[in-house]
Formats: sequence, structure tokens, C-alpha cells
Amino acid sequence: MNPTCDPSLKSWIPVSADSDFPIQNLPFGVFCRRSGEVAVGVAIGDQVLDLAVLHGAGHFSGTPVATDNVFARPTLNDFLACGRAAGSAVRAVVSSLLAEGNATLRDDTTLRNQTLVPQSDVEMLLPTQVGNYVDFYSSKEHATNVGSMFRDPSNPLLPNWVHIPVGYNGRASSVIVSGVDVRRPMGQTKADDADAPTYGPCRLLDFELEVGFITGSGNELGAQIPTDRAADHIAGMVLLNDWSARDIQKWEYVPLGPFLGKTFATSISPWLVTLDALEPFRVPGPQQDPQPLPYLQFSGDWAYDMQLEVWLQAADMSEPVRLTKTNFRYMYWNMLQQLAHMTVNGTNVLPGDLYGSGTVSGPTEDSRGSMLEICWKGTKPLTLPNGQQRKFIADGDTVIMRGWCQGDGYRIGFGELRSTVLSASE
Amino acid sequence: MNPTCDPSLKSWIPVSADSDFPIQNLPFGVFCRRSGEVAVGVAIGDQVLDLAVLHGAGHFSGTPVATDNVFARPTLNDFLACGRAAGSAVRAVVSSLLAEGNATLRDDTTLRNQTLVPQSDVEMLLPTQVGNYVDFYSSKEHATNVGSMFRDPSNPLLPNWVHIPVGYNGRASSVIVSGVDVRRPMGQTKADDADAPTYGPCRLLDFELEVGFITGSGNELGAQIPTDRAADHIAGMVLLNDWSARDIQKWEYVPLGPFLGKTFATSISPWLVTLDALEPFRVPGPQQDPQPLPYLQFSGDWAYDMQLEVWLQAADMSEPVRLTKTNFRYMYWNMLQQLAHMTVNGTNVLPGDLYGSGTVSGPTEDSRGSMLEICWKGTKPLTLPNGQQRKFIADGDTVIMRGWCQGDGYRIGFGELRSTVLSASE
Repeated sequence: MNPTCDPSLKSWIPVSADSDFPIQNLPFGVFCRRSGEVAVGVAIGDQVLDLAVLHGAGHFSGTPVATDNVFARPTLNDFLACGRAAGSAVRAVVSSLLAEGNATLRDDTTLRNQTLVPQSDVEMLLPTQVGNYVDFYSSKEHATNVGSMFRDPSNPLLPNWVHIPVGYNGRASSVIVSGVDVRRPMGQTKADDADAPTYGPCRLLDFELEVGFITGSGNELGAQIPTDRAADHIAGMVLLNDWSARDIQKWEYVPLGPFLGKTFATSISPWLVTLDALEPFRVPGPQQDPQPLPYLQFSGDWAYDMQLEVWLQAADMSEPVRLTKTNFRYMYWNMLQQLAHMTVNGTNVLPGDLYGSGTVSGPTEDSRGSMLEICWKGTKPLTLPNGQQRKFIADGDTVIMRGWCQGDGYRIGFGELRSTVLSASE
Repeated sequence: MNPTCDPSLKSWIPVSADSDFPIQNLPFGVFCRRSGEVAVGVAIGDQVLDLAVLHGAGHFSGTPVATDNVFARPTLNDFLACGRAAGSAVRAVVSSLLAEGNATLRDDTTLRNQTLVPQSDVEMLLPTQVGNYVDFYSSKEHATNVGSMFRDPSNPLLPNWVHIPVGYNGRASSVIVSGVDVRRPMGQTKADDADAPTYGPCRLLDFELEVGFITGSGNELGAQIPTDRAADHIAGMVLLNDWSARDIQKWEYVPLGPFLGKTFATSISPWLVTLDALEPFRVPGPQQDPQPLPYLQFSGDWAYDMQLEVWLQAADMSEPVRLTKTNFRYMYWNMLQQLAHMTVNGTNVLPGDLYGSGTVSGPTEDSRGSMLEICWKGTKPLTLPNGQQRKFIADGDTVIMRGWCQGDGYRIGFGELRSTVLSASE
């Protein structure tokens, strides 16, 4: 086991047992101090550790980023471009500095005060400049649910689905971070019984619970990334809410796929949880039948035992209610397969790219990852604690996504992905 | 008329009548000298004018870019972010400096030698860092041809096509410039009569003749760009080759649209021809019936009388042969409508984004914009001057796209978009 993942590790910074950010996690993010200063940091308990300041103090002199302060930047891109090994080296330094018994930072009051900031005193920014955003469709349960609702319940999957990690290009510029409000989109829709389309606010606004991976080092155009090298190009994961305007999407999506039904916003959580931190939680994924083509085969376990939840809080509710609870381990296609497939034609990946898993739905009714599925196309509305009904998301609703891997006495979590929906501006 | 478009204008730099780059054009591009220096330049005849040097000499002091040398950059993005009016102001300065009778630059031998470089001595780079790339599908003739081949010849257009400028998100990272070779992609395909898919080189490699527009200033997420302000956000146009792997696309594209069949490469011409230069060539577009929804209505003429050609040169041919000759004026949906539609849901546009028109096909058999249509799904192979047959593009073939607006005694052209296809690397 990577020593930074040792469950017995403790930090001299107090971390509660239910914190998402124990010393085994150490996710990377970009934060803004109240002074306006922006830097790359690491979450530890309820604090942020400022890596730019640590770099300036020479603490990364033994790592591949020794000569370039890639942490004094407004995004993780330059750091990610250094590759997975550089990330692991930085992680090892941070783990050591924060470990119980290491006095270097703990007893250096000046440096400690410069480097540690309460998370409540910072604003988290989008972790990367997203050069490419792709959304996959890799949950068999989700694809089956959607195919059952819109096509044929007796034959819900299209023939290509079991052979290809189906995906499509999304919109990079409208990827936003947790905390940024989402405005209900306007758009063109057509009712089934109408002669012509109309223009107005989206009426069927939905979330999709996803996990996204973010790439580290890229590849040259024309070169493939095979499954056995894919993990070297993946820096870590974030939670992802693939906001969807179902009515807009329905009218526009043939024959070239989803477009304005998706492009208005995609929300992600701010902390990049590294593959290093998630390593202990790898588990076997679902059996793939038929066997995929050789370029999609892989060795090892590449599903993750990661608990995922969606909560909803309407404007007049004092606390959120849980809508779903599922697990990332159900995903049929894994990240290695997604990245290998995407680059099999020579497509180039850039550091900081975002790749969404597709909606994560589990096998049971209470583990579905979208309102479309939870309320089964609006036929099974749910009643909130405030007495209101929901088939889709209403103005003023806050959607909260949470995810974590549960270790023995600690958890590797993402923090919250929280977004409030504003009414359309007409 | 904008005085920079005056047909009687002449430059003290000799420009042949059939040059794409007379003083009325003045397109912007990014060039690399043999020394390795990169800067923004303007094409004039067979020369490039170095704007970074001109800026250093104070020649843009009266313009919005006076204090920031946005031309000493490896992309046009910073310049484009200054907006359309800044572009027009720079254009006016350049037009004046190059105009017959203006001795400022002409008689300053030192500055002239620093700023003018033969185009044959420079390498043209990708003009912008493409943050978002979207491809539309706006030629009714093309959509009709495709619908006739793959769906129903008696009812080839899907119901949404006449109501929406249909489009989809493309891959930004694999946008490449003229002169960069294109490697035939590998991928997964399935023959209609096969039980299972197979892996191998694309067998049905195609070009698509398109015109792309590149955005100048962007909009905030959540704000729309209506048709009557869209032209302020469009900097200019380039030729675009939307490379397509028909067999890969056919197997993958349901239900989420084209992906690996397109993402391996999109080629564009290096010179951004401004809307200012193209202004005299605006003509009425096709009648739109049914009338689009109000947010897609516009005033004025927004089609362009722009001649477009595709030429093919196989490896053993000494000169290319013309495959098609069409005109951009046939496009059903115009750029204003495309941009207004794309942002109607609040999607944010960035400076330097690329938006493809979709394949430009005309009403006649000799004006079709792809091999798919020219050879009608492989049923009408064409014979090249070297005796070889083609249904699609072969390894070693060079595809050349040309486009220009013909004025009285001059033409506003794009230069060539030229790409050679390399064999797949297996």
C-alpha cells in the first residue's frame, strides 16, 4: 500500500472522524483568500494548506516541481501537466509535513500561519481550466432506465451500448464550481401534440449524479492511450452534476445528440481527489458480457466502492432531504476503458480535461441518479417534507451531491457539490 | 461602405489580381518566423505584416489595443477579446499604412524590413486557442442528401431541422491548422451483416467542406446573444474541414451523436478573414419556411456570396483535380441565428471559439461538400486523372479547400486549407 494511504496515519491538525478530508485524502484545489490571493491548496480537516507558500519556502525542492511554483496559479493545469508521478511526490511531501510527529511545519508558527487557512475563510474556484469536456453514459442501470422510458422496455439498450463506452462532447466553457448558482435555461421545445415548437423557460430541469475524472498529462494528437497506461494520465476525480433540460433535449437531440439541453451548466465539486487517495477502495466492477474488444480489456479492479448521495433542499426547507443513495461501483464501463476508447482514434487529451461518468444509477429504485428516473418520467412525483411535490427541479431548489469512500475509521470524501437553481431570465 | 473595403484601394505592396490577400482583405493570423519568433500578422499579397513589431513602433497608439501588445502572442485570443470595434480600428490603421501614397511604412526601410516577411518564409500556426468548438448542420441540401441516403428519400429532414439550427459540441483539442497531416483513425465499427463489431483502421474516411466563424468578445454565463447583436461577437471566418470517419460514426452515433467519428481531427485555414472584409459580399439567404421563432429572426442580408471548392491530389498526381464547386450563400441557417440559438440557454462563448457551418452542399450534383454525397454512399465512385477510383479518401491523398468572394478586380480569399492523409498507425 502507498504509505500515504495508511489508515493508521494521523495528522497534528485535528480531523473529525466524519470529515471528508483526513490525512489519507489530501485533495488538490484552487482557493481564493479574502485578500483576493489565489493559489493551489490541499484540504486537511477544516483547513486549507497553501502549497504556493510552501513551495516558496522550499518544501518541494526534492520533487519534479522544485523549480517552478506551479501552485501560484489560478488553476491546477500546470501542476497536472507535470504528470501523475509529480502529483504523487507532492502528495508524499504534504503527507509527511502534516503527519503527527513531524514538527517542521507544526512548530514553525510563522510558516504555519501563512500556510493554513480555515476553509470557511476561502472561496473555492473551478479547479482546472477545462480544455475538453466529455460526458459518458456508462451506467447500465441508467441506460436501461432511459431506454425503458423512451424506447422499448423489453429491449432498452441499443446494440452498441455493450460494445462501446458511449459518450459525447460537452461544453467546456459552462463547467462551473460548487456554489455557483444555475440559471434555468430558456429554449425551444415542442409538445408531442403541438404543431409547432414554442420558446420559453425549461419546464423539465433535472440533475444527473455523476463522477468526473480529470486528466493529468496528455497525449500527442495521433497517439493512443491504452488501458494499461490510462491510470497514469488520470489525476483524480470530482463529483459532477450534469444539469439537463429534458424538454429542450428531447426536441433537439436527433440526429446529432444533446446540445442546448446540456450546455447551460455543468457543476463540479472543487476538490480533486487523487487516484492515490482512492487506491484502497478499488473493487471489481460488473462482469462485462459480451467481452469487449481487446483495446477495451484491462487488468486489475477498476471500479470504486464510493458512496454517492443526492439531497434536495427547497427554498423554504430548513434542511435537505435525501433523494438517492447509490454507489460508483455499479458503473459498467470504467475510466480506463473510457480513456482508451476516447483516444483509440488518436484524439489528444489535455491536462485538466474533464470526463463525466454518465449518470450513476444503481439497481434499486432508491439508487437512481436523476429526477427523470426517480419520478419515472414524471409519473411518480415525490413529496418533499414541506408538502410540495416534485417531478423535476423547481426554482429556488438547492441540489447537493455528496460522495465518499468509507475506510476503517476515516473517509475519503469530495466535500459537497451544491448548486441553487435561479428562475429563468426572460 | 467601410472605406477599408473600397474596391479602388491599392497598396504600395504589389498584389496580383488573383491574390486572396489584396488590401481590401487584411486577414489576421499567427505566424512563426524561421527564427522561431511567433507573432500576429496580416496577409498582404504574398507577404505577412508583423503587427507585434508595428505595435512596438507605436503605430496602434490611437486604437483600443494601444497599451497592450496583444500581437506579441502565440494566438489571436487576447486580440479577439478586445472586441469587434478594436479589430476594426486595427484594420483601419493597417489599411492606411499599406495604402498607395502612404509613405510612413513604405519609406521607412528599417521598419519595413522588420515588419514584412514573405509568406514563403513563415509557418502559419493555429490562429486561436479554441476553447469551444461546435459544429452546425445548416445546409438544407446537405441534410436532405444525408437524410435521403440513410433515412427516407421522400421525407429526408427530421421535424426539428426547419425550426432549429441543429448542432453539436465537437472536440476543441484536435482542431489543427492547414498543413498539418491527418492520421487515418483506428476505431470500432460493425458491418450491417456482422454479429459483432471489429477494431481496425477507418475504411470510410471523408472530408466535409465547411466555413467556420470565430468569436471575438464573449458573453457571461447566463446572458444571451440575440441575433441583432451577434455580429458584434463574430470576428471573422475560416475554411473548415470536418474530417469524418463514416464507418466509426455510423456504429457509435446513437443515441448521443457523433464522437470518435469526428474527434480525431478538424482542420482550419490559418487566416481569419474579418466580417469587415466580407461585408460587401452579404446577400439574401434562402427563404426560411416555416418562419423561425422570434429569437431566431434577424434583419438584413446575412448569407455570403462566397465561392467554395474542394480539390483532391492523390500521392502520384502532379496536380490536384477539383471535386466540387459550391457557394456559401446556399446555407439555410446563418451565423447570427447559430450564435443566437446557441446562447439562448445562457451558454457562454469565449473569444477564439470555433463554430462550423456544417457541410456546405449546393443544389446540384457537382456542388456537394463531402465524398459521402459526391459518390452517393459509395454507389457512384469517381475516377481520378491517374486512373484510380475513389469512394472515400485514400492514404496519401491531399484534400485542398479554397474559398473566396469575388469583387470587381479583386478577391477576398482564405488562402488554402490543405491536409494530407497519413495511413493509420496500428
